[in-house]
Formats: sequence, C-alpha cells, structure tokens
Amino acid sequence: MILYVTNIYNYPFIQGKIRDSSILLENNRQIWVFINIRPTFEVKLNTNILKPTLPKGTRDFLPLDIKKRDFIFTTIRHHFKLFGYDAIETPAMESLETLMGKYGDEGDRLLFKILNNGDYLQGVSDDLIERKDSQGLIRQISKRGLRYDLTVPFARFIVMNRQNIKFPFKRSAIQPVWRADKPQKGRYQEFYQCDADVAGSSSLYYEAELIRLYDGVFKALNVPVVIRWNNRKVLYGIIETAGLVDEFQLVTVVIDKLDKIGKEGVKAELMAKNFSEDSINILFDMIECNHLEELMISMKSETGLKGIEEIKEVMRHLESSPMHNMLKLDATLARGLGYYTGCIFEVNAFGVNMGSIGGGGRYDNLTEIFGLKGVSGVGISFGVERIYDVMNELQLFPKEVSQGKGILISCIDTESFPYSIQIVDQLRSNNIACELYPEVAKLQKQMSFANESGFLRVALVGDNERSQGKVTLKNMETGNQEMVTVEELISRIKEHSL
Amino acid sequence: MILYVTNIYNYPFIQGKIRDSSILLENNRQIWVFINIRPTFEVKLNTNILKPTLPKGTRDFLPLDIKKRDFIFTTIRHHFKLFGYDAIETPAMESLETLMGKYGDEGDRLLFKILNNGDYLQGVSDDLIERKDSQGLIRQISKRGLRYDLTVPFARFIVMNRQNIKFPFKRSAIQPVWRADKPQKGRYQEFYQCDADVAGSSSLYYEAELIRLYDGVFKALNVPVVIRWNNRKVLYGIIETAGLVDEFQLVTVVIDKLDKIGKEGVKAELMAKNFSEDSINILFDMIECNHLEELMISMKSETGLKGIEEIKEVMRHLESSPMHNMLKLDATLARGLGYYTGCIFEVNAFGVNMGSIGGGGRYDNLTEIFGLKGVSGVGISFGVERIYDVMNELQLFPKEVSQGKGILISCIDTESFPYSIQIVDQLRSNNIACELYPEVAKLQKQMSFANESGFLRVALVGDNERSQGKVTLKNMETGNQEMVTVEELISRIKEHSL
Repeated sequence: MILYVTNIYNYPFIQGKIRDSSILLENNRQIWVFINIRPTFEVKLNTNILKPTLPKGTRDFLPLDIKKRDFIFTTIRHHFKLFGYDAIETPAMESLETLMGKYGDEGDRLLFKILNNGDYLQGVSDDLIERKDSQGLIRQISKRGLRYDLTVPFARFIVMNRQNIKFPFKRSAIQPVWRADKPQKGRYQEFYQCDADVAGSSSLYYEAELIRLYDGVFKALNVPVVIRWNNRKVLYGIIETAGLVDEFQLVTVVIDKLDKIGKEGVKAELMAKNFSEDSINILFDMIECNHLEELMISMKSETGLKGIEEIKEVMRHLESSPMHNMLKLDATLARGLGYYTGCIFEVNAFGVNMGSIGGGGRYDNLTEIFGLKGVSGVGISFGVERIYDVMNELQLFPKEVSQGKGILISCIDTESFPYSIQIVDQLRSNNIACELYPEVAKLQKQMSFANESGFLRVALVGDNERSQGKVTLKNMETGNQEMVTVEELISRIKEHSL
Repeated sequence: MILYVTNIYNYPFIQGKIRDSSILLENNRQIWVFINIRPTFEVKLNTNILKPTLPKGTRDFLPLDIKKRDFIFTTIRHHFKLFGYDAIETPAMESLETLMGKYGDEGDRLLFKILNNGDYLQGVSDDLIERKDSQGLIRQISKRGLRYDLTVPFARFIVMNRQNIKFPFKRSAIQPVWRADKPQKGRYQEFYQCDADVAGSSSLYYEAELIRLYDGVFKALNVPVVIRWNNRKVLYGIIETAGLVDEFQLVTVVIDKLDKIGKEGVKAELMAKNFSEDSINILFDMIECNHLEELMISMKSETGLKGIEEIKEVMRHLESSPMHNMLKLDATLARGLGYYTGCIFEVNAFGVNMGSIGGGGRYDNLTEIFGLKGVSGVGISFGVERIYDVMNELQLFPKEVSQGKGILISCIDTESFPYSIQIVDQLRSNNIACELYPEVAKLQKQMSFANESGFLRVALVGDNERSQGKVTLKNMETGNQEMVTVEELISRIKEHSL
C-alpha cells in the first residue's frame, strides 16, 4: 500500500504544522489524504537525506565566476571573429575508436569512457569477465568516450566534413574537455580549451597572424605577456650541428627543462648521458645566440637553415605594424615532444609565477591519423583557466565585470506595485537590465537583499514617488539618495552617469 | 625493432616520391632512416585507415550552423541579462547518486554512465559478474553520469551553494545535456537546453515576468508565437468538480492528449474508463469555458478557486504594458504528469507544424529531493533545437546571420603582400573582421576560394592599387568593381553601406 499526498499542493508538509487531516478515498491501491497544514518556508536541511556532492575535479560556477569567465571568452571570441576564425562545435562524446591511441598510453588511461547502454555485458568474452580484466573488457563494454582535447576532434571534423569546407580552413573552438587526471589545485577533470587553427595551408603568413591574434587578445584583456617563439627545424638544426641528432628526442626533452633546472642542470644531465663536451658547448653557444644572422653562420644543417628562413619570413609578415606585447625569439623553446614540425609558440604573463597561459605551433600532418594526408595545420591555444587565475591574482578584471548587479526596483507600498512593474518594463524595453523585488516587503528586508545580492543601486518606489512619477534612487555604496523621474533614471543609466 | 622517421620534417612521405634514402643510425632499439622525398600535398584518403565516424545521435556544427545557433543563444542570453537571470554553469559529469532515481526508470536507463577509471572491476561482486548482470553491476563500475537535464543539477547546485546565494535566486543556464534516446529526425543524444528559473520565492510576479521573458525573446527572434498557460490547481479543481479526483493522474493524461486525438477522442477514452457521462460533461463544460468569471462560478473546489485567484493575480501583473505575442489561457493545458504545482506554460510557433518550442511552470519542491525543503521554484525552458528548425523553415534568420563571410583581402602581386597585410591590420584595428588570402596566388584561384567560402566582398590588391593607396573592391554578388582608398573602405564597412 502506497501513501500519496496530492502533488497539486505539495507544500513541505512534513515541516508544516498539521492542523487537520481527512482521508478522502481509500481503495486497495492507494489512499488520498488531505492534510490541512500551516506551511513553513524555513530552509532546513534534512540530515536523513544524503548531502549531494560533485564528482572530484569538477566545479560549479556561480554568477560572478561566469561573469569573469565570460569576459575572457567574449574577448577571445571577438578576436577570433576579427581574424576570421569561425567557430565550430564538435560533440562531447566521440567514438573511442577516434580517441584511443592518439594521446599515448597515459592519455588512453585518462580518457573518460562511457558505458554502453542496455545489457552491455551481453556477449562479452567469458574469459575477460572471469579474469576481471578491466582493461581488456573496456572496448567490449564502451564504444564512446569524452573529448580529451580539441585537436583530435578537429582532425576528425575535417576528414568527415571535407566536402563542406574550403581550404585553408580557419576555425576556432571553445569547449570543455575531460581528463581523469588526479585533481589538484588549478587542475580539474573538466575544463575549457580554447583553440584557433588553420588547416590546409603551409603559408607562413598564418604564423604571423596567430602571433598577432595572441597580441590582440592579451592587449584587450589587459594582461601583459611575452610571446616566446621558435622553430622546431632550428632546434633540430642546432642539435644536428652539435652532432647529437641520433639522440634528438632525448636532447629536446632535456633542453625543455631549461626553465626549471637552469643551464647548469641541463648541462649536467647532458654530461651524464656521455655526450662530448664539444657537442654540449656547440649546443649552448647556438641556443644562447641572440642574433639570427650569427646563428645562420654557425648552423651546419639544411633543416636548421630552412627553419631560420621560416623565422625570417614570419618576421617580415610582422613588420606591417607594431605589436603591443613583447615577442621574443627563443632558441631554447622546445614545447615538449608534441607533434610540432615548424614554428612553436608559448605565452607567459608578466608579474605572476605561473606556467604558460598559451601555446601552439605548426604540425604537418594534422589529419593523417584519419587517412587524410597533406593537410598542414598551425594553431594556438589560450589557457583560459590559467588566464582566469592570472587576471584574478593581478586584479585585472574591469570593475563592471567583477562587481555585482545593476539596479533593483524596490516597492514599499502595495498600491505602487503595478507602478513598479511599469518601471521595470520601461527600463527593460530601453535595454537596461534590472530586477524587481517580487513583493511588497519591509524596506529593511529589501535593502538587506539588495546588499547581499550585490546590487549597486536601488530605485525605491512608494506612494510619494508614484504620485510624482519618480523613484528614490539610492546609491548602495555611498548611501546617497535622490528623487529622479523615470526618464532621468533611464538617461542617466544609458550615459553611465548613475 | 621499431621504425622511426624523424618527426621534425614529417611530410606525408608515403604519398611522396622517394628519391633517396639512407640509414643514419642503427642499434638494437631503433633505426633512424632519412628519406629524401618530393612531398606531394595532394589530399587523398587512404582507404586502409578506418574512416572516422561520430557516435549515433551526435552532430558536428559547421561555421554557418554555429552562426545561426549563436543568433538564437545571443538573443536569449541578452534577455536573460535584461531580466536579471544570471548565468551559472554546472559540470557535465554529475555523481550517479545525484542523477539516478530523478527521472523515473526510463530516465535511469537513458542516463549515460561513465566507466570508473583504473581497474574498475577490482572488488566487484563475483556473483554479479558471473551472472553478467549488467544492471546490477552499474553502480559498482560507474559512479558518474552525464547531465540529463538542467533542473536536477540546478537543485543540487542550490543545496550545495546555498551559503553563497541569496533567495530569491534567479539563474539561467544554457548547456548541453545527454540522453541515450533512440536517435531520429530532430532527436539527438546530445542537445542543448536553455532554462531560466527563480528559486526560493512563491511570488506570482515571477510567473508574469517569465511570460514577458518569453514574449521579449520571441519578439527579438522574430518568431510569432502563442504562449498558452494554465494553472495546475485549476485543472485539479475542474477534475475535482467533475467528481473524478480519485483518478486525477489518469484524467490529466487523457486531457493532455486533446491536441493529438481531439475532443471526441478524449471523450471516448474517458467513457472507456467507465466514468459517468455527467462527470465527463462537467469536465468538458469547464475546460472549454472561456471566461474566468464563469469558471469561478461553476468551480466547486477550494484548490481550483485558489488556482483561479493565482491566474488573476498573474494577469494583474501583466497589465502594465501590452505584449507582442498572443497569450492564451487554456484550461486544457496539462503538460504531462511533471512536477508542476501551479502555473504552467507552453509556447507554440505560428505557421509551422511542430511541437512546443518552450515550456515551464511552478514546482513547489525544487530541492526537497536533496534534503532542502521549502524552496519553491518557477521556470521556463527554451527549446533551442526546435526554435532553430522553426527559424530555418520559416526563413527567419536575418540576412547577415545566414549569409557568408565579410571581406577577403586578395593579393595578386608579390611586392604588394606587405601592403595587403597592412590593410588587414588596419581593418582589424578598426574592429572590422577580415581575412587575407595567405599567399600571392592566381586571381582565378583566389576568386574561386572567395566564392566557395562565401565571402561577400573581395578587396583586390596589386601593384596598381598599392601605388595609389587603394584597393579594388569587388562585390561578389553583382560582380561590380570599383577602386576605393583604404579609409573609404573602412568608413563604408562601418556605415554598412558597402
């Protein structure tokens, strides 16, 4: 027998004081009980019910977080548009087929896999089941995974949509990605990536354009940065000139640590590998060389010379107008082992101790993994989560973004409520965001709501204001009050002179 | 033994003609092979590699799709801001704990569950695994799922963040949700929901505000709609007056079919349930009654009378200014079995044969399921996927949204390439979106790129233009050409008089 209480009027009756009750109908399946209660609207947590939680490594974003994040996204989106990088979107779920094997063994482990729906164990190998072989079973019970980055989906997108796009294809994407990394401060399992890439052109103009895109965005965000860049071919040429090309990957990895362990640390590591002092000296002379022409003279590598040529061409494309941020050619920049084959970029913010807030480069085989050869790509990425942290730390968010809400209309007289609604309608039809306190409550209650919600201004409406077609405008920061007409209110808000 | 080809210079060599090759280094772990090739940049699909696919029920969005969808999202977002519904975001992944049991058995089945990472089979019940009990095993191998709607996460959000929010709390959310529904035309496994809700106030002003929000958005989208509304208490009162309250849910379900099976169909279904003709007549007299005052007279239910009172109050709050769309009180509107307890809304577009493109209502126990009682909520939802279909069908997207790209700078003379870059920089620093064809290619090639990419204007730059500080502006629709200075180009784009 199940007890129903009508869902027409389901006040939080358990919290309410029961004043009367009657059984209206009874049969063998259900009883309808009407309970006359005095509802209580107190907010109390019933400790018998499990307190909800979020999966580790995930976050809720409150309105103020969203406003600040939106400021970053909007700025970047605006520049993507200016520069002609059209937004596309790919689904959060991709075939595991598409994702697996693209990020190394570690990546495969960190992919979130989605359990097949329905009777997913039907037909799986008894052998795997009996041995409880978790890894072996994955592909039999899961055929989908969550996007791990935006680059592999972009490559898949190009291959699948190549009939509907025209090369060179410039695209941007701002979407969340998911990684089962161990969560820690500043590292989440769900976070946004923000990329701009060109596919299908090997023109070095795009390297220059992407540097300008970085420059424009960080200028607009008011985050002073240094944009470091290099060319993988130059790095290769230096290593080749030093006679260490047979250990290219190893040497690259060690050089990449320069930032962290310093020159002496890198030298020590290279010595430990039994490389000759001669080689190591050539290596350092060259990566520390500050003049491209000098580097060119010492470069004994065809690939390296091609890299220098590429750098010079990009620099020519940048001559048209001055940059706002510092651009620094840095022969030590390696950007890990990645798939980069030409220019590489990395952006660091001045004034904070944080890793790079952007990076990218050229990769010559974007879509080869999906069978489409000859599509060269170059792209950059904005580390929006870190940019957010930098801007918070340096207090770079504009006042209107980091501060609270605009204006609250506050009605303190029942007869004036319709007049208050009229004002609200009028403001909104003038494109002015505002809110109405939804009932005629005591002034003190409404003021404390306005304060705690972060409203900057309150327009008080009572009998007196209504009879004059005015409102009493209160500045919540200074406490100042003045009576103004609704028209005056509107024009002052529009002129930002409130 | 593994074969490496250096990733420094990895042209699509397999497609290239091999001219020479040499083994540089050989040891027991790897061979470095240098291959001198003539790279081919032809785009060919290698059929040996699996053609990538998307999971069923998911989609890629191409730039034009995104532009049109963005027009809808931007319009809605603008109105959310005007009306004070602050955006929040919740993660795509929620604890299964949070999601399970909230959407009925069907919903539980349709939830996408995420496989635990690592050795997920370790420690699971031998019994379940031996019986291949897929359903029984779920909770042991999966603790996370993908968001199924925006309402349950909102309820969880309120409970978890209640120290940081102030009631009444107005929030909006535009995020994708995932359901393992059978994909079909217009139904996807990943799609956007778009909600505005107020939590923690039972003021009926919000019902009026949300109706106005619908009105404002659909006016701005230029989609003429009828906003139908009703109050669950009225529906309950009618059923109670007809003496059918003991079968309330059944009667509601049948009435909900009025749209589909018509009055006679509904009557027949009710007759088949052996309800008295008297009851059925009362029912129909009342739901077809067009006058609130008449309905009030025939209403023999306290709950029903309260519902009528609520409707009248909402109508009073709507008197302040006229609406743009039709608002229709409809006593037959039931909106399924849902959790609604007061006003309910549904929006239909004129001129297309499609289901509702919006809906919502008041629910008195938003957060009770997570132990927080007494939080009344009222909210509306925009069916963005359907709104998109309606606007496509009725061709309601503004021209500047549905048409292609703006302006392409096209350089046909090597010496003029730096001048072309200057123009691009100048346009962009004037906030004008533009693109540069990235190399000095033949005019015909560049024009066909401009055409196929959908550029509306091309600014041609050659020796002649450069020497005069001008460009030749070509209208790609009419074919007209004229020479203008860069300043003129900028001012004409800004004045939309191109």
